[in-house]
Amino acid sequence: MKKAAIVGATGIVGQQFLTALRKHPWFEVAGLAASERSAGKSYGEALKDPKSGAVRWYVNEAVPEEVLDMPVVDAADLDPSKFDVVFTAVESDQAKEIEPRLAKETPVISTAAAFRYDEDVPLLIPGVNGEHAALLDVQRKQRGWSGFIVPIPNCTTTGLAVSLKPIYDTFGLRSVIMTSMQAVSGAGRSPGVIALDITDNVIPFIPKEEEKVRKETQKILGAMRGKAVEPADFKVSCTCTRVAVLEGHTESVFASTVKKSGVDAVKEAMRKYAGVLSKEGLPSAPRQMIIVQEDPFRPQPRMDRDVDGGMATTVGRIREDDVLENGVKYLLVSHNTKMGAAKGAVLVAELLNKKKYI
Amino acid sequence: MKKAAIVGATGIVGQQFLTALRKHPWFEVAGLAASERSAGKSYGEALKDPKSGAVRWYVNEAVPEEVLDMPVVDAADLDPSKFDVVFTAVESDQAKEIEPRLAKETPVISTAAAFRYDEDVPLLIPGVNGEHAALLDVQRKQRGWSGFIVPIPNCTTTGLAVSLKPIYDTFGLRSVIMTSMQAVSGAGRSPGVIALDITDNVIPFIPKEEEKVRKETQKILGAMRGKAVEPADFKVSCTCTRVAVLEGHTESVFASTVKKSGVDAVKEAMRKYAGVLSKEGLPSAPRQMIIVQEDPFRPQPRMDRDVDGGMATTVGRIREDDVLENGVKYLLVSHNTKMGAAKGAVLVAELLNKKKYI
Amino acid sequence: MKKAAIVGATGIVGQQFLTALRKHPWFEVAGLAASERSAGKSYGEALKDPKSGAVRWYVNEAVPEEVLDMPVVDAADLDPSKFDVVFTAVESDQAKEIEPRLAKETPVISTAAAFRYDEDVPLLIPGVNGEHAALLDVQRKQRGWSGFIVPIPNCTTTGLAVSLKPIYDTFGLRSVIMTSMQAVSGAGRSPGVIALDITDNVIPFIPKEEEKVRKETQKILGAMRGKAVEPADFKVSCTCTRVAVLEGHTESVFASTVKKSGVDAVKEAMRKYAGVLSKEGLPSAPRQMIIVQEDPFRPQPRMDRDVDGGMATTVGRIREDDVLENGVKYLLVSHNTKMGAAKGAVLVAELLNKKKYI
Amino acid sequence: MKKAAIVGATGIVGQQFLTALRKHPWFEVAGLAASERSAGKSYGEALKDPKSGAVRWYVNEAVPEEVLDMPVVDAADLDPSKFDVVFTAVESDQAKEIEPRLAKETPVISTAAAFRYDEDVPLLIPGVNGEHAALLDVQRKQRGWSGFIVPIPNCTTTGLAVSLKPIYDTFGLRSVIMTSMQAVSGAGRSPGVIALDITDNVIPFIPKEEEKVRKETQKILGAMRGKAVEPADFKVSCTCTRVAVLEGHTESVFASTVKKSGVDAVKEAMRKYAGVLSKEGLPSAPRQMIIVQEDPFRPQPRMDRDVDGGMATTVGRIREDDVLENGVKYLLVSHNTKMGAAKGAVLVAELLNKKKYI
Repeated sequence: MKKAAIVGATGIVGQQFLTALRKHPWFEVAGLAASERSAGKSYGEALKDPKSGAVRWYVNEAVPEEVLDMPVVDAADLDPSKFDVVFTAVESDQAKEIEPRLAKETPVISTAAAFRYDEDVPLLIPGVNGEHAALLDVQRKQRGWSGFIVPIPNCTTTGLAVSLKPIYDTFGLRSVIMTSMQAVSGAGRSPGVIALDITDNVIPFIPKEEEKVRKETQKILGAMRGKAVEPADFKVSCTCTRVAVLEGHTESVFASTVKKSGVDAVKEAMRKYAGVLSKEGLPSAPRQMIIVQEDPFRPQPRMDRDVDGGMATTVGRIREDDVLENGVKYLLVSHNTKMGAAKGAVLVAELLNKKKYI
Repeated sequence: MKKAAIVGATGIVGQQFLTALRKHPWFEVAGLAASERSAGKSYGEALKDPKSGAVRWYVNEAVPEEVLDMPVVDAADLDPSKFDVVFTAVESDQAKEIEPRLAKETPVISTAAAFRYDEDVPLLIPGVNGEHAALLDVQRKQRGWSGFIVPIPNCTTTGLAVSLKPIYDTFGLRSVIMTSMQAVSGAGRSPGVIALDITDNVIPFIPKEEEKVRKETQKILGAMRGKAVEPADFKVSCTCTRVAVLEGHTESVFASTVKKSGVDAVKEAMRKYAGVLSKEGLPSAPRQMIIVQEDPFRPQPRMDRDVDGGMATTVGRIREDDVLENGVKYLLVSHNTKMGAAKGAVLVAELLNKKKYI
Repeated sequence: MKKAAIVGATGIVGQQFLTALRKHPWFEVAGLAASERSAGKSYGEALKDPKSGAVRWYVNEAVPEEVLDMPVVDAADLDPSKFDVVFTAVESDQAKEIEPRLAKETPVISTAAAFRYDEDVPLLIPGVNGEHAALLDVQRKQRGWSGFIVPIPNCTTTGLAVSLKPIYDTFGLRSVIMTSMQAVSGAGRSPGVIALDITDNVIPFIPKEEEKVRKETQKILGAMRGKAVEPADFKVSCTCTRVAVLEGHTESVFASTVKKSGVDAVKEAMRKYAGVLSKEGLPSAPRQMIIVQEDPFRPQPRMDRDVDGGMATTVGRIREDDVLENGVKYLLVSHNTKMGAAKGAVLVAELLNKKKYI
Repeated sequence: MKKAAIVGATGIVGQQFLTALRKHPWFEVAGLAASERSAGKSYGEALKDPKSGAVRWYVNEAVPEEVLDMPVVDAADLDPSKFDVVFTAVESDQAKEIEPRLAKETPVISTAAAFRYDEDVPLLIPGVNGEHAALLDVQRKQRGWSGFIVPIPNCTTTGLAVSLKPIYDTFGLRSVIMTSMQAVSGAGRSPGVIALDITDNVIPFIPKEEEKVRKETQKILGAMRGKAVEPADFKVSCTCTRVAVLEGHTESVFASTVKKSGVDAVKEAMRKYAGVLSKEGLPSAPRQMIIVQEDPFRPQPRMDRDVDGGMATTVGRIREDDVLENGVKYLLVSHNTKMGAAKGAVLVAELLNKKKYI
């Protein structure tokens, strides 16, 4: 068993890491770090609101009992040399300080955006661009680290990139137009989206999100060129909105392919691609990366987000589009806090473990 | 005062007609028709559920007390010769039977889709294509009617067509890609959208909606050519979804213009256009057809749907799009059961009254 | 393996039966019946909407693949002699006709209210009043049936009766005042609660519900006296409302006990009682009938409804009440479509199987 | 015109004050105070988020244009001598510091709880206990102030106290059991209730709320005895919950009266009482304090909260209760951010103006 530490363990993403790592066959949770306020307490105590007695555990699955007595240390004091891998679940500002210190000695898998756009940092999605892991050798060398930092992409990018992968590989891509209807869990809890703003409403703007999706999609589908990834050369234009959904991002995609594509050919490409991870033996991998739905009323976030443990991307309503050249349009649902966050980060760790980077 | 009858008066759209006509300066409600079941009752009785005592009035505004004692007649028995205009709020199947009978003698303004795509039938939006009213002379002549039928467009089309009008007139349009997030009220109450389907969810398909939006947008922005409207020759490609919003459709639009446009020029065109109806003296007209919002978090359906009595289209987040040629992207909110339904139909009647068709 | 049939198999409760019986160690689904419209089709075909291609499967768990090819028969033609038990999921009107025909030969477990208030019909909740099963001998004899009918209680009654059981047994009960906040799934899908009515709203009335809760709670906690159950003699007064929750009824209870009770004693009584079913070996039984929550922000329907497979009743905020004599107040959450419907009915069948009635 | 200042003017309650005072016939907004951060800016600038450009105006009604250019001062610097009345909309902690300073010179109407339970401080609801205003003379004398502090009650108390007033006066009250289903707006926006917590959920606990309702209801319905109010001597026991409703608290009430009451007598008492304020000439007063609904599906928060400008309490489903002595049960809806907050505070100011305290 490899030893894993979680930084930001008391927050909601940290809780999702604990849930994703529960009874994991390769990694065991051996260290928990959080803010100074929680340091010195047991994890169970740290969750408790001293005033009201409320237990601040926010994940649907019950809190893993085996961690309740584990001590929580201050993130600033975490000794990376004790762990084989560190999962971080902190804000970008904190990530900038904490992660390099840890990465000097140990691999860091991060949900923060802090290092996503650095040239020597890959944005990994197993099954999509595992070969970008080679960039870690560059990163280690350039930075003189024993470890490294691998951020996962923004949760809105993940489903889009997965769904585009077989299209890009089979037909090439000229451009992508996307409108998202994102779940409130994507905004976290501090304070996240307040009910007064989203009930009976749509919020038409998520700061920075559209630019992230554009840059990350191009980087993920780009190709290794020497010491960097050359971004894929198709255009991406998005409008990102928030709707009254708890979990699961829905995206309406219009794509233009280089070669003639067509509905049946796109479905076939997706179905052929779907099993890409099935023989890799990664414990958190979905049986199918993409599920192509024929029911015209699917995908729906509440019905499809949890398929295959929240790790599959469900695509439906694949139709031709006559505005774009070789246009195809479809909808997708991807679980933003499973595949798009902690559990997706664990999948990255699994891939890197298999590739001997961890 | 012109005398108006409402067919389908007990349903939710009929109730919206009653609300839209309350204290109207030009039209007075002089007749109410509904199904056989309600015939012979007073309107107040017809609203009451005999079993439970519930009053089936669904509109936020209180029921106009002056109609409570009015008799309801069977729609099949309504004598059109007694009225100057008839507003119909029935399903398409019923409209096919009822409306031609009434139109032989009297102008009919309809919310149903039954006749929308007939060559001699205009789809009117005052301020957008009032000149299409000339088609009514063709219709009367060809059908040998004293009256005529004017359907209003689908509620999703209305906001889109209004927002495109100044763009089309100023820059020309090549194509439009649109993803809608529609309110549940658009589906009515029989049974409409059930809570089990939409709570914590998005429904990615609304049967027939996308094709309606395409055809209607092209027809509305088309030009009178002799005895018909020649559809505008830009392409329209949509994905229509339903979200957990009560009222107000949100649409994410990506448009390609013929001439170079740009964000500032589009805003200017919209603002110049906005006052188009302000001097016409139509009682239900919005002061501004389009409101251009600079706050990036707008438009939001709950905040913007009721502006100007629910008759304005609010547009925001106007940005350049680099996928489409001369691309511009924006979001809009339009009130689907005010401007997009009964109150919009009353506005049509006002225009036709002014033009002496009623 | 005992052979089970499901009547009303294509509806949402029927689907919940299929889900509850999936891989059941004692019962196998051997027959499916539905309306005439579905008869002659395979189950998979019967779920499909011929027009839109939509698959009308409404349960979160995926459809059990092993039933997709099973034939569906008309409920009127179902031959009860082929089955060891029949689960019925139909409206009360239909139940009145269908169930007696089936019960002549075979045990029938029903979710309908049709026979709940008959003297020789027990309302069983395993762990609460299993001894009422003795009434089945009376029923068989009086009606001359080989089988029998056992309805399960109304879903709002179930959680209340479970939570009151240890209080009643330990302290006696004088009276109960209850306000419910019920989930929309309790109203089913035909059409159930429409989104226009419940979004941003509370519906303060559920026809007949309050009277059902009163009568059923008294009957369930009553005692066998010869050939009938003598209702428990405490009073029950309720107000039942509907809120925007998908699954899980929340109830605010104020109870007056005969003997002095107190918060700690009530908690102790509940905790002692909780394991009542744990040694019975019933496959669907919760490990704990009642979970006493100390977190003051619990129970919450979304957090607590699925505990122990949706079969546990979670109770929290137990406090003294100074209005009622020996007053105690608390809140509970009970899963209305698991413990309160199909899965609860399967639990009844398990109990009756163990008692050799099936 | 009397001059009014608003402290906490940029927050949501401050915005509700601005809305409630718009075009007010007696009071004009002459001063705005907020935190140091907003001081020195115009109100319009203070609303704007400097980063995103968002306009933080949260009320449905549009921002009153006449205040956009008014300067905002630091609350600590507000000179009370310039105003005839100050409305405060700040947290309890701040109220404790700010309000006494202002009250030395000027009447202060407060939405905070800070002084609600002081012996010489009345909790006024016009139409319910206007005579408690006499306590202001005591307060002024004891504290040596020219002004005074009048807090309004907690928003959950208001509707309850209004509905109990005619019952208490006509029949006397022994006890009240109440379960509330409260709107999210009651928790404000800092951060208030987050969507992740309330979507598809009920939160069964609102810290301190139940105790507030108990103490305040007894104080409001108490009688002036010399220099203090003697609390009414009936018992109050509540469970307060939060549901997914934007505005409007729903309360399920069970009351025991001293004299025999009965459904018809209670309705009659409420209807007789309803017009209590109608002849007082207070501009914000509802035409009817209580509206008795006969439709069993009412009151509903979304349908009834805005009746009479959000100032009426709608009561429905009045039934006998057989658990309590002379028991009666009903539901009520009261608008928590109109009658229960800023607009209710303006109504208090109107009453005190009429009584020459302002």
